[in-house]
Order: sequence, then structure tokens, then C-alpha cells
Amino acid sequence: MPVLKEVKEIADKIRNMEIRGAGKIARYAAYALQLQAEGSKCRDATELWEEMKAAAKLLFETRPTAVSLPNALRYVMHRAKVAYSGGADVEQLRFVIVTAAKEFIHNSKSAVRRIGEIGAKRIEEGDVIMTHCHSKAAISVMKTAHDQGKNIKVIVTETRPRWQGKITARELADYGISVIYVVDSAARHYMKMTDKVVMGADSITANGAVINKVGTALIALTAKEHRVWTMIAAETYKFHPETMLGQLVEIEMRDPTEVIPEEELREWPHNIEVWNPAFDVTPPEYVDVIITERGIIPPYAAIDILKEEFGWALKYKEPWED
Amino acid sequence: MPVLKEVKEIADKIRNMEIRGAGKIARYAAYALQLQAEGSKCRDATELWEEMKAAAKLLFETRPTAVSLPNALRYVMHRAKVAYSGGADVEQLRFVIVTAAKEFIHNSKSAVRRIGEIGAKRIEEGDVIMTHCHSKAAISVMKTAHDQGKNIKVIVTETRPRWQGKITARELADYGISVIYVVDSAARHYMKMTDKVVMGADSITANGAVINKVGTALIALTAKEHRVWTMIAAETYKFHPETMLGQLVEIEMRDPTEVIPEEELREWPHNIEVWNPAFDVTPPEYVDVIITERGIIPPYAAIDILKEEFGWALKYKEPWED
Amino acid sequence: MPVLKEVKEIADKIRNMEIRGAGKIARYAAYALQLQAEGSKCRDATELWEEMKAAAKLLFETRPTAVSLPNALRYVMHRAKVAYSGGADVEQLRFVIVTAAKEFIHNSKSAVRRIGEIGAKRIEEGDVIMTHCHSKAAISVMKTAHDQGKNIKVIVTETRPRWQGKITARELADYGISVIYVVDSAARHYMKMTDKVVMGADSITANGAVINKVGTALIALTAKEHRVWTMIAAETYKFHPETMLGQLVEIEMRDPTEVIPEEELREWPHNIEVWNPAFDVTPPEYVDVIITERGIIPPYAAIDILKEEFGWALKYKEPWED
Amino acid sequence: MPVLKEVKEIADKIRNMEIRGAGKIARYAAYALQLQAEGSKCRDATELWEEMKAAAKLLFETRPTAVSLPNALRYVMHRAKVAYSGGADVEQLRFVIVTAAKEFIHNSKSAVRRIGEIGAKRIEEGDVIMTHCHSKAAISVMKTAHDQGKNIKVIVTETRPRWQGKITARELADYGISVIYVVDSAARHYMKMTDKVVMGADSITANGAVINKVGTALIALTAKEHRVWTMIAAETYKFHPETMLGQLVEIEMRDPTEVIPEEELREWPHNIEVWNPAFDVTPPEYVDVIITERGIIPPYAAIDILKEEFGWALKYKEPWED
Amino acid sequence: MPVLKEVKEIADKIRNMEIRGAGKIARYAAYALQLQAEGSKCRDATELWEEMKAAAKLLFETRPTAVSLPNALRYVMHRAKVAYSGGADVEQLRFVIVTAAKEFIHNSKSAVRRIGEIGAKRIEEGDVIMTHCHSKAAISVMKTAHDQGKNIKVIVTETRPRWQGKITARELADYGISVIYVVDSAARHYMKMTDKVVMGADSITANGAVINKVGTALIALTAKEHRVWTMIAAETYKFHPETMLGQLVEIEMRDPTEVIPEEELREWPHNIEVWNPAFDVTPPEYVDVIITERGIIPPYAAIDILKEEFGWALKYKEPWED
Amino acid sequence: MPVLKEVKEIADKIRNMEIRGAGKIARYAAYALQLQAEGSKCRDATELWEEMKAAAKLLFETRPTAVSLPNALRYVMHRAKVAYSGGADVEQLRFVIVTAAKEFIHNSKSAVRRIGEIGAKRIEEGDVIMTHCHSKAAISVMKTAHDQGKNIKVIVTETRPRWQGKITARELADYGISVIYVVDSAARHYMKMTDKVVMGADSITANGAVINKVGTALIALTAKEHRVWTMIAAETYKFHPETMLGQLVEIEMRDPTEVIPEEELREWPHNIEVWNPAFDVTPPEYVDVIITERGIIPPYAAIDILKEEFGWALKYKEPWED
Repeated sequence: MPVLKEVKEIADKIRNMEIRGAGKIARYAAYALQLQAEGSKCRDATELWEEMKAAAKLLFETRPTAVSLPNALRYVMHRAKVAYSGGADVEQLRFVIVTAAKEFIHNSKSAVRRIGEIGAKRIEEGDVIMTHCHSKAAISVMKTAHDQGKNIKVIVTETRPRWQGKITARELADYGISVIYVVDSAARHYMKMTDKVVMGADSITANGAVINKVGTALIALTAKEHRVWTMIAAETYKFHPETMLGQLVEIEMRDPTEVIPEEELREWPHNIEVWNPAFDVTPPEYVDVIITERGIIPPYAAIDILKEEFGWALKYKEPWED
Repeated sequence: MPVLKEVKEIADKIRNMEIRGAGKIARYAAYALQLQAEGSKCRDATELWEEMKAAAKLLFETRPTAVSLPNALRYVMHRAKVAYSGGADVEQLRFVIVTAAKEFIHNSKSAVRRIGEIGAKRIEEGDVIMTHCHSKAAISVMKTAHDQGKNIKVIVTETRPRWQGKITARELADYGISVIYVVDSAARHYMKMTDKVVMGADSITANGAVINKVGTALIALTAKEHRVWTMIAAETYKFHPETMLGQLVEIEMRDPTEVIPEEELREWPHNIEVWNPAFDVTPPEYVDVIITERGIIPPYAAIDILKEEFGWALKYKEPWED
Repeated sequence: MPVLKEVKEIADKIRNMEIRGAGKIARYAAYALQLQAEGSKCRDATELWEEMKAAAKLLFETRPTAVSLPNALRYVMHRAKVAYSGGADVEQLRFVIVTAAKEFIHNSKSAVRRIGEIGAKRIEEGDVIMTHCHSKAAISVMKTAHDQGKNIKVIVTETRPRWQGKITARELADYGISVIYVVDSAARHYMKMTDKVVMGADSITANGAVINKVGTALIALTAKEHRVWTMIAAETYKFHPETMLGQLVEIEMRDPTEVIPEEELREWPHNIEVWNPAFDVTPPEYVDVIITERGIIPPYAAIDILKEEFGWALKYKEPWED
Repeated sequence: MPVLKEVKEIADKIRNMEIRGAGKIARYAAYALQLQAEGSKCRDATELWEEMKAAAKLLFETRPTAVSLPNALRYVMHRAKVAYSGGADVEQLRFVIVTAAKEFIHNSKSAVRRIGEIGAKRIEEGDVIMTHCHSKAAISVMKTAHDQGKNIKVIVTETRPRWQGKITARELADYGISVIYVVDSAARHYMKMTDKVVMGADSITANGAVINKVGTALIALTAKEHRVWTMIAAETYKFHPETMLGQLVEIEMRDPTEVIPEEELREWPHNIEVWNPAFDVTPPEYVDVIITERGIIPPYAAIDILKEEFGWALKYKEPWED
Repeated sequence: MPVLKEVKEIADKIRNMEIRGAGKIARYAAYALQLQAEGSKCRDATELWEEMKAAAKLLFETRPTAVSLPNALRYVMHRAKVAYSGGADVEQLRFVIVTAAKEFIHNSKSAVRRIGEIGAKRIEEGDVIMTHCHSKAAISVMKTAHDQGKNIKVIVTETRPRWQGKITARELADYGISVIYVVDSAARHYMKMTDKVVMGADSITANGAVINKVGTALIALTAKEHRVWTMIAAETYKFHPETMLGQLVEIEMRDPTEVIPEEELREWPHNIEVWNPAFDVTPPEYVDVIITERGIIPPYAAIDILKEEFGWALKYKEPWED
Repeated sequence: MPVLKEVKEIADKIRNMEIRGAGKIARYAAYALQLQAEGSKCRDATELWEEMKAAAKLLFETRPTAVSLPNALRYVMHRAKVAYSGGADVEQLRFVIVTAAKEFIHNSKSAVRRIGEIGAKRIEEGDVIMTHCHSKAAISVMKTAHDQGKNIKVIVTETRPRWQGKITARELADYGISVIYVVDSAARHYMKMTDKVVMGADSITANGAVINKVGTALIALTAKEHRVWTMIAAETYKFHPETMLGQLVEIEMRDPTEVIPEEELREWPHNIEVWNPAFDVTPPEYVDVIITERGIIPPYAAIDILKEEFGWALKYKEPWED
């Protein structure tokens, strides 16, 4: 079951972080499967299927805790498996794989634009929107609404410790959108004047909880307190299938020096610990809708995305496992 | 009705902010009234009473929007008025005023210690406490609990934009208390492990709402969401009588350069506004108790403090008005 | 213990509803006590006190279920009792009674204006206010805010079945205030755009529940759901002391023909009952503040009003009872 | 691609509102597709498919904002597309279309009866039910429960401004069911005695929000406040697929003269606006179940209905689009 | 400062638990003070006051953690102190003490009856009431309602581990009241059919929290969830002044053998601990009213009871301390 | 359509309760269908299908109100129907049936183990877990977490009236897990120290409500109040398809003598009724996730289980009905 050299090279680059960013990794993984299918010398479907499984496993193991990478593999391999089990011959199987890979890449590339189109329909003339951190998908919603001539205003929280709010504020302002920039703690103070909250997601669990930049849960909480809609903009490859099988999403703890400069930290007493969690978990009851490139869903339908996109539904073997 | 020179000097210093800090201003105002009573040459009570009113008005007008200053005046003048109306002679009146002024000064000075003693009884061995900003009264609760040998841990939020959390963290740590330092946005993420929230107050309204450093309301909200007790440590002179007469507490908007350094701000596009509110308002239903130097009360009893301390109850003339 | 003829005449007019309206009845009752004190021939305090008790009982019995009438009597008689118990002589007692009666009448007359002054401080430039039914005290708040040059807009619900909303809408509009008139069912639909809810009260119980026109509770509920402030404007004589002793406030059931015209109703099948409750009960947790002529209080301090105004506190004898 | 004359006539009648009522329009649209398939002269499947698409587009454009009409088209065309893509020949395709159209018509006609059967199982002996407006589906639940010999009582709100409650009250009473008729504002006052709330829907969004007669949201809110079940009775063609793609449901603003008679309105000051929204939006967390003719679902499963009935799931092309 | 022999004997009996039961202990403590005042040989007020303080201290120390005992002492001594400070002579002081003691004893004895009278007004014909444990005050409410001819039904929870529900059930049933007896876990299942919850209290804190038999908080929680009124019947001597000064109410942990018979427990594995807390804490937001013998109050007014009854308000010295 | 003797014998044993326990009954029912398919003499698919329907009906009628039995039948017959409608020949149909039956039996047997594996991933080192009653699936989660070396502690409620908590406590303790045993009423008192609640289910409705041992709803309610996760461990055959068609789950009322020993009960007054409901209903908003052997789902996805496992989706004929 020879895995092609090009596939191995891509795997190496993913492992070494030469290829990085959730979307890019996912697209390269799909592309590697396409290359394998196109380049394979196999003469029968079983043989090709075995090769594909080997390639998928190789790619999967480069970053076993990521979300987007295995989702790309599942997208392609799930379709391949259905075809293979249904009796496809080697050419049909190859065709299915190549098509699925191209489809995934196309979808992934257009997802942010598509989320913008769908989400912008929910934005009304004059809306004040609150956002947190820097999310391409969330920004796409606001820019598209602006493109449609809607006069909106965006409250951007600075997003400590890494100040992603600054990037968001400048990006929106440069695009011509009015921005109000505030500290994270001011979220509740300005919720009364907010019409909608639009934020991104790092990943989304099977029961609709949203893992995103620390502070997201506080904003969603006070939005629900004020009956303001919280909309999460997220590409479907952010949905996290393993959580259906009980996997807890581990919250990454980042370096204290993001919070306190190293030289200052060195002088601090030893009984101060600096804790710097990257994310927090927003329970689904605080999220009104999730905007995906496939449409708007309530958070409790996260599971449907998993099923439709990745063929994951309520079982627990990867398509490349026996 | 000659107001003494010493009184006028104190009034000038308060106006010029040579005397500053809520507690200090209040104590000097009471002291000025004491000086006036002691130094007055009056031979009868009515004359002294008129002098006192003039002195009180003079002092009151130095900082008409403060809370602690008029409260100090009310404390002394309310007692003087009761004595005067009850027929006190000049010596009796002088005695009442001097005693009341000394009492106020003594109470004010010992209030933080007393709040520490009372509040610490509510802290239990092993408690994890969350606090925000830098409040002497709140810190007094934690230090006293530590003094009593209770093993506590304090989660301190950095408190953007002015990082008062750093001062709090160092002060507690230097005192020997274990500290966990986090960004403001992490408050909900660590609420599950928190046993009690202890925060200070800038002022407290007649219906028990707490005006305090922006971010306080978010923490109190998520504490209530998790059924964690929120305790506000506040000296009685923080209670704001005018709110009983409908006065809205205005939230101070501070300079944008506290949030973004001036040089950076200059380069920002003009359609970004930086809003920097100093405080927010925590509704009384999110506060479990207020710890004052006079005892622990539910927030809805704020009005009782106003009545007992300042003779304010449900009427609307200052004691020095006719 | 001869009750004066003039007092009896007033009692008759109250009983026959020649004198009507909560405020008017109360003022006449106080005036009758004043007349009795002024006109009495008594030579000693005990005799006068007995006469006053007789007069009070006579007046009380004219409308035993009203709220304002006994409150007027209590206001005067409580002060009389304190003086009498404290050893006042007949002239002192007479003086206390006459003064108290005049004070009550004055307060009652100026209460609506005073509520307007206090409440208007809570109204901000640009506020959208929702109101229900027709309440003089609530309207006074809005008119005073308008007088102060604040640009406000009022959403008025029509208030079925008796359309008091029409009166409110016209009164406000004639005064120059912009009005949006909607059916009662639209209250939640427009709550998102509402800044404050201001409504009146028919009476207020010892634990702060508000009895008011049916529909009030629904509006307060959805206001709380949206974190919009509900302010109840109510004169202190609306507070209902007997509820401290357990009395349930009975909700008046009015005639079905207010809901359905009689001729239409006659043709309806007999298994349709038309129920027409005049009031509903808003629990105190849905009310943020009560605006009285004596100041702003949280609903849980209703009891303080009862104590201060009527000397009622936690005991259970009328001052004219032995 | 000739569209048949009969189809065009139906399209005209829908456009001119000769055919009206959500159910009727939907059934005629399906019938028109059936006519087209039956009457078509096409000899191959591709040709027929093109004709069908043309007919569907024509019908779709008659009322582009309705919900039931496009749902009828989708029901038939989705099945046609599956057959066509699967390689059906012209006769098979025709058969599929005719069958699907008949099925839709049959289902639609029997939906109200079926909802009654399913919903009535949830009604228990002695239940007091509250309803609002006039909904055939909701009434069917109550009548069926009555037919089963269950002794029920129904509280009917009058439903301003158009008094649909009167129709509901009479219809139920004529059927032998005891009715209590109240103004809309009394909904909370009688919620304590209510066992279940049963209401209809105008349309239902992808995330389970219910658009229905203004006032529905207030009743559902107070039902949830009292832990009383809210059940929405709605045919599946009420589910609104476009909301999955972000479409906001626009709330129709109707004529002020429905609220205030024209002659009265003319005399009103110009600074009173009368706003008359036809509907409001009940968020899914206030709805316990939706009763459809296909079974009972939680509101968050609205999306499943869309998928199963209209083949809509998470994509965004109409079946008649290329 | 000789304390009388009779007083010492009472102190001994309280210490040895010959005198027991919250009410009885309190009444004997007041009686002991009365005896001391009556029997004292003192010739001047200061001497008597010193003797009284000595007696109060002696009695106080017999059971330092009880609530009713110090409250009895405070009731009498507070009045004595006011008189003494006001310049009473020895006979006046003796008179005040004896009167206050008799008053306390009388009030205490009649409190349960009085609570019944007040609380029963809140019970309506046909009410279904839920109660927990065995509370004389709560039972008094139900019996009085029954005496008034109201037809009520009481749901009694068995109250593990000591089955006090059995006593309550039998006492009510013997009195002629219909009882439904259920396990504690069934409280939520039957809350829908419950009209009011009436329970007792072991003690009540300064901020209105209710300490009562474990399980009380669960019932109050689900009552609030269903918008059913929770009424706590409690004599005023149950109010706990020290909590105003921060004292935490310690929850008594009782013997495991109340939960599991000793012989069974002996055979259990050692890694099972049996925890048997006697009480739990119901937060004030779950309590609608407290019914005392002095009237009905919202829980947040607990502090008023403390002030009025025990002269405690916001200071922190016992009247017998210097 | 001869049903085999062996099948009839199994049916008899199920009816006579010789075969009992939800899991066992279900597996025997599937096995009976397998026997029928294997033993049938039919020569064509139609004949076999008719026989299978007869066998299924016979088995179904043995216990028409059970949940697991019809679910087993549906599992097999749904797959059979799909095959039969798809044109399977007799051998293919037989093969499908035998395979489906074996699969069901295998899944059912391994479900508890599988639930343990999936659920244990959600348990973290040091967790304190609360459980109620005795649930094999819930216990499997805790044991598996223990097997993985996680140091956990379990709070077990005694579960009146039948003390299933004792069995749970001993089973866990014998397995080496630390247990805290408390009365049911203590659930809220210890919720603050609880990290997760894990309980079983008797059955689960189409909208995600959990029917389980009385008391479950109270624990889930207070867990939600404290923001503690409630996880329900339940095999998929616990999901109740008929509820989709409106069926109300009837709550079994068990014998009073489970609550009060018969001899004691005989002496009780006749106006005490003892009500002993076996179960209560936990609404889906209090359940965070359901752990099934197929994965973790939000309660609102219960409907997906019904569709995937039993082919039930939104229609209403059993597969063995015509």
C-alpha cells in the first residue's frame, strides 16, 4: 500500500507547521487525498481503498488533536467508503475521491464568503453589533451587511491578553464601518444598546457548546440576560465529532508572559500564579443560532452537521479504520 | 455668621484636590465642622446653628457630586439639628457637634478594619475567593481571614484598563496569601472553582445597586449564574442618599489613552471611538450581602443605612437647609 | 363622646360616594379629623382623645375595604396617639392633630407633582418609555421629564377592556410628547426598543407586590426578561398596611359587559363565561423601584413606608382601638 | 418549455388572491404541478424536467414571500429531482410527480385532523387549556380531546385588534366545550389555573422560533414562568426553509384602523402613531413541543421537518433552479 | 453583684437541658431576668443594672450557640438599657424589666396562635398546601384556616431521616384536614398541583436566608420554579442577630445512625461515609414572605425584626456588655 | 402464516414475566424474530414477510406498554421492511433479519460497557459525582472512570422509598470508589461541591424529557441552578417512539406499603392518602447530555436516535402494520 511521495511531503509540512491555520491544513489534507487517488497505480477498487486508508492514517497522525484536519479526511473518506461499499469499481472510486476532495476545498474556500452572505441577512439597518476577538467568519457577516448598504456600528472588545480586538477594530474601520472600542469588562455596560452579538468559534461540540476565545461565554451570558441574540459564525469544519463519543475538549493553557511581560513577572512574588486559558466554553442555551456556510442552525443541531458533512452519526469508527 | 479661617482653608484644599481620596475628604470635612464648633465665639445656640449651616454649605459646595463629603456633613449636622430642635443650649450643641465629628472620624478610620472583622467570619477554611480591582475594604476581609489562620486562595482579575489587579495581587501575595492572576475575561471560566466573590464599591444607591469598577457587574452576574455568593465590602459613607430622590448616578467616562497609548491612538482610523467608562452598575438581585462596618445587610436594606447614619429617611432637605 | 355634625356629614358623603377618588376621599377624611379637633369642646386630653377615636371609627367604617381612607386616618391618629401617650395636654393634642391633618392634605395634594420631580430624574434624553392604563403619578413623571426639555417617546398600550390607554395617549400627545399607541399584546414585541417602563399602582402590599390594572404584571415580566427597568409611581397612601397582617388583596371582578357589549353577549352560547378581573398582582422581583413622593425605594422597603407614614410597624391595632 | 394553460390560470388566481388561505394556496400549487406532469407532451425525462422547473418558477413567483406555496412546490419538485437525477425515464418521472402532488394534497387536507389526534393524547381529563387567536390546528386538538370524552375547559383571549378570540370562543362553545373568555392582558392572571397552553403558528423558523399572532410570545413567556407546557399546533408546510439561509421573517405591519376606527383616528393629535404588528416571535426556549401532522417534535428539531419534508437540508438551491 | 439563687438554678437547668425546646428556653431566660429584678435588694439604678448584666451574662453562657435564648435576653435587656440610659430610677428600671419579661413571655406563648391567625388569611378555599418536617407555626396556619371553614388539602413530605412528616400528617389528619403523604423526592412531581408552600424555620439570618430542616431549600426552589408562593412561618425569636455581624450559621451534622441503623452500618464498607446534615439554607430569593407573630414581611426585612424586637440595629455590643 | 412454536414460547414467557428486565426482554424479542426467520419454511419473500409481521405482532402484544420490547421489534423489522420493499428475495430477507437480530442482541449486551467508555471520558481527575437510584449505565460510567485511574468520589442519595441508593453505594464502594451516602433531601445542600451529576433513565421521550426514578427532576433542577452538568446514561432502547405521536408517559403509582409498612398504615387515620409515584419527568432544559452506546447527544436530539435506530421518523405505522 504505497503512499505517494507528494502525500508524504504534505504530511511532513503539516507536522512541521510549515502548513498552518485551521482552514489551510484542512484543504491541504483533502488535496493530499486527491493526489493519492489521482496518482495511484491501483487496478482494483479494494487496492485503491487500502491505499487511501493508509494515506488518511498517515495524514491523521500528523496532528491528532486538531479539529479541521480529521474533518477534511472524514469528508473525503466517508464518501469514498460509501462508494466502495456500494460496489464502485476503481475508476468510479477514484472519481468519487477526487470530486469529494475538490468539493471540500471549494467549500472551505468559499465558506467565509458564504457565511457572510447568510449571516448578513440577519443584520438590520441601524444595528449595533458586539463582537469579541478576531474571527474571519464573524467579520465577513459585518462586512457583507456593510456592502449591502446597511448602516451598522460595531462594539469591539480589546480581547486580552493578545489584543485581537485591535486587529478587528482596524480591519472593520478600514472597511468603512464605525467602531466603538472598549475593554473586555465593559461588555455588560454596553449590552443594553447592542442589537446583536456576532462572534466566531474555535470549535463546536456535539451538543452545541461553543469553544472560543476566553471571554466569549461572559458576553453570551449577558446577551442572554438582556434578550440580545448571540450568533456564532463558524465553518462546518469547526464541528468536533469526537465530542459525540465523550471526548472532553481540553482548554489550552498558554504562557503567562502573554498576560504579564516576562521582566515584570520575574519580580513578582512566588505565590502569584498567572493562569492564561486560551478559550472558554459557552453552553448551547446561551447561543441562539450558529451560522455555517451550509445554513443557519440552532446549536442543538450541531449533530446534524456532523452527520451530513462527515458521515459521523452515532457510530465511532473513522472511515479509514477497519 | 463668620466661618472660621481654618474651615475655609480645609474647604480650599478639598476644592484644589490637595486633600483627596473618599475617606480622607470625608474625615477632613467632619474635622472642619468640629473646628468651627470648637472655635466659634457664639453665645447662643441659634447663632451657633447658623454658623454651622454656613460652614456646612461652604464645605458641601467644594465637591457637589462626591458621595463621601456630603455624607460626612450629614452625619454631623443631622445630630446637631436633632439637638438644636430639641432645645439644646449653646454648650450642649457644641458638645454634640464635636462628639459627632470625632465619632465620624473614628468610625471612618476604623471602618476598613471593622469590615475585615465582620466579613472574615463569612470566609471558610479552604475558600477560593474571586476579587476585582483594588478595594481596601475587600482586601481587609481577605487579610483578616488569613490572619485567623484560614487557608485561602484569591483569584485576582487584572482589571483593565488601569491594571489595579496587579496592585491587589502583589498586596495579597506580599501578605502571604496565594494568588491566581487572570485576565478579566476569564472570570466565568474560573467561577466553578470559586467559593465566594468579594468586591468593593464606589457607591451604593438607595435601592441597593452597586456602582463599582467596570467589570464588577459581569462577575456578579456569572457568580449568581453559578450560585456563588457575591459580597460587597463598603464603608457606610459609600451609600448615596440623593439616589433616593431619583438622582441617577452618572458613570464617569475617562480618557481613551488609558485604554490605548496616545501614540498608537493617533494612528487609528477616525471611525474608531474608544469608550472608557470607569464604572458599571450591578443590580441588587446579583448582590447577596453588603458588608459594612456596622454589620452585614442585604442590598435592599441600603436605605436603612441612609436613615440610621445620615438621618435621611424619605425626606429631602439637607440638615443645613432651612 | 360627641362626634361633630360636620364630621358626620363628610362620613355620609364618603359612604354615598358623593366624595370619590382615592386621593379625595383620603383628604376629606383627614379634614374631618381636623374639624373634630378644632371644633371639640373638650377640656382635657383624654376626653379629646376619646372623641377623636370615635370620629376615626365612624369615618373608617364608611368604606372598610379602601386603602387611602384608613391611611389618612392612621396618618393623623398615629401622631395624635404618640402625643397623647407622651402626656400632651388638650391644647398640645389639638395642635398635633390639626397640624398632622393639614400636613397630610398638603402632602397628598403635592404628591403627584413631587413624584414627577423625583421620577423625572431617572428619565434620560432620548428615552423610550412604555406605560399601561392611565396613572396620574406615572404621567407626572413623563410630563416633568418633557418639561425639563428631555426628548422622550412613550409607548402606550390601549388597556382593554376600558381603553384607558386612549386617555393617556391623548393627554401625553396634547402635552407635546410623541406617542406610539399599540394593543396590549404588543408589549413584548416592542420591549427591545424600550428604555424604561413607568406604570402606576392601585395599591402596594407589605412585601412590595404591586396591585394594578390587569396587564401590568405581563409588562413587568417581559421588562425583567429584557433587563429593562420597571418603575412604579405611587403615592404613599397607596401602601396597604393590612397586608402585613396577612390580608389578601381581593381582585375585583367587574362586569362582563365591559368586555363584550351587552347585546352581543346575550346571543353568546351559555357555556362561555366572560371573566373580567380589574387588576393583577406583580410580584416584587419584577419591580425595580417604587417612586413615591417621599423618595425612591426598592419594593422590599414598602414596609418602611408603612412604618414611617402610618406608624404601623409590626403591630396590629389601629391607633383608635384600645 | 411550454407551461400548460391550466397551470397559468392557477398561477393567476393565486396572484390575484382568488385562491387564498395558506392551506388552499399550497394545495392548488401542488395540483398545478400534477396537471403539468399529466398534461405534458414530453417524450423524454429531461424535457419533462425542464417543463416542470418552468412551471414551478412561474408558480413560485406569484407570491414570493409566502411560506406554504414554495413548500408545496418543494415537496413535489424535491421528489421529482431525486427521481430525475437517479435516472428515471419520462413515465417514471411523471408518475413520481403525480404521486407526490397527490400525497401533498392528501397530507395537507388531513393534517389538521391528524394534529388533532396526536395533540389530543397530551390533553388529560380535567385540563384547563389556554389558547390565543383562531388556529384550526389548535382547535382540532381541543375538539378531538372533547370527542374522546375528556372534560376540558378553555381560556380564550379576545386577541386584539381583530377579535379572533370571539370566533374561537364561539366555535368551541358550539362544539360543547366550556369556555372562559378574557382580555389579552389577563393571560398571566389566569396562568396559575392553566394546565396547558395550545396555540397555532403562522410560520416556524429553522431554529424553532414561532411566528404567530401578536401576543403569542407574552403568553408563552408567562407559561414558561409558571412551568406550564406550551404546545404549538402547526402543519409541516408552516416551516420556513429560507430562514435556514438567514432570511429574517418580516413582521407585517397592518393598518392602524384595525386598532382605532378611522373616524376616531382622524381626530387624534398628529404626534400619536398607531403601530399594528400582525405577529410576534416566540423564541424556541419558550416552546415545549410542536405538534405536526407527522408527530410531536421539540422546537429545535424544526430543521428535521424541513429536511424530511422538503429535502432542504443545509443547502441552498431550489430544486427548480439549476 | 449577687445573682439570685433562683436565677442560677434556671441557668443550671438550661445548661443541663432539663429545660429544652427553643420557645421554653427563651421564656425561662426572660423569667429569670424578671425574678432577678423582682428579688433584687438594690437601692439604686446603677447597682440594679450591674446585677442585671451579671444575670444576663450567666444565662447567656449556658448555651452560647442557641438563637432563642440570647434573643430573650436581648428583648428584656435592650429595654432595660434604654430606660437606664434615659435616667430611670431603681423602681422605674425594675418596672421596665419586669414588664418587658412578662411581655416577652406572653408574646412567645401567643406567637404560634398569632402566626396562625395572620397566615390563615393567606389561605384560600380549596388550596392545596405543601409542607415539610414538623413546624408548630406552620401547622398553626393550616389548622386556623381549617377552623375558618376553609376546605384545604395538605401534601406532607415524610422528612427523612427522622420522619417528622409522620407526626405532621397524623396531627393534621386528627384535626380533620385531608393529607397526602409522599416521599421527599416527590416534591417537584406534585408542585404543579400545589397552591402554596408553608414551612417553618429553625432560624433566619440578617439577610433573610432561612435555615430549616434539610430539604426545605429544594422545595422552595421548585416552588419558585413553578411560581408557587413559599411562606415561612417563624416566631420573631428565630431571627438571628449575630448574622448581621458576619456570623455564619453552622449546619449541625448529626449522627449517621439516624440515616442507617447502627447494625447495618457496621457491615458497610469503610469507604462509605454517611453524612447527615440537620439543616439546609434557603436563599431569600426563594422565599416570598415570612409570617411572624408581628406581621408578614418580605425576607429582606428580617433586619427590621431584629431592630424592632432586639434593639440590635447595625451595632455590635450586647446590651449587657460595656 | 404460522408462527413457530419457539417464538410462541418466548412470547408466553415474556407475558408471564418469566423473562424480565428491560434489556433481557428486548434481547429475547429480537432472538424470537431471528428464530422465526431461521426456522421458517417459506419459499418467497412475501410469505416470509407476512410470517415476520405475525410474529412481531404476537410478541408486541405481550407487553403493550413496555419501551424496550417494541424497540427491539422495530430495530429488526425496520431493517427487514427496507430490504423487503427494496425487492430482496427470501434468502436475502432472511439474512437481513438474522443479522439485524444478532446485531441488536450484541449492541444491547455491550451497550452498558460502551456507555461506560464514552461517559468516562467526561469524568475528570478529582471529580465529585452525584447519582440517584441504581442505574447500571450510570454506574458503568463511574466504574470505567475509576478503572482509568481517576480518583473520584460519589455522592449517593438513599432513594426512598425503596432504598436503591444502598445498592448503589455498596456496589461502588466494593469496587473501590469513595462514597458519601446522604438522604434525598440533602441533594441541594451538597450540590455546591458536586462537579457532575450522572443518573440513569427509565425512558426518554421524543422531545428529550427523561422519565426516571422520582427525585431525578429535583436533582437535575438544582444542578442546573448551580451550573453543574447533568448527564443521563441511557441505552438507546430506552427512547420512547410513541411519544412522538403524542403519547403521554403514564407515571406508575406503586403500593403505599413501599412508603409506610402495612401494619403502621393500618392504624393511620383514613384522611391520609399515601401517594407513591415511581417516576418523575425531568424536562430537557435541565439535561445537558444523554450518554448512549452510540455516542453523546443533547436531549433535543432524542428524535435522531429514534430515527436512526428504529426507522421511526415522523410517521406513525409500525413496520409490521400494513
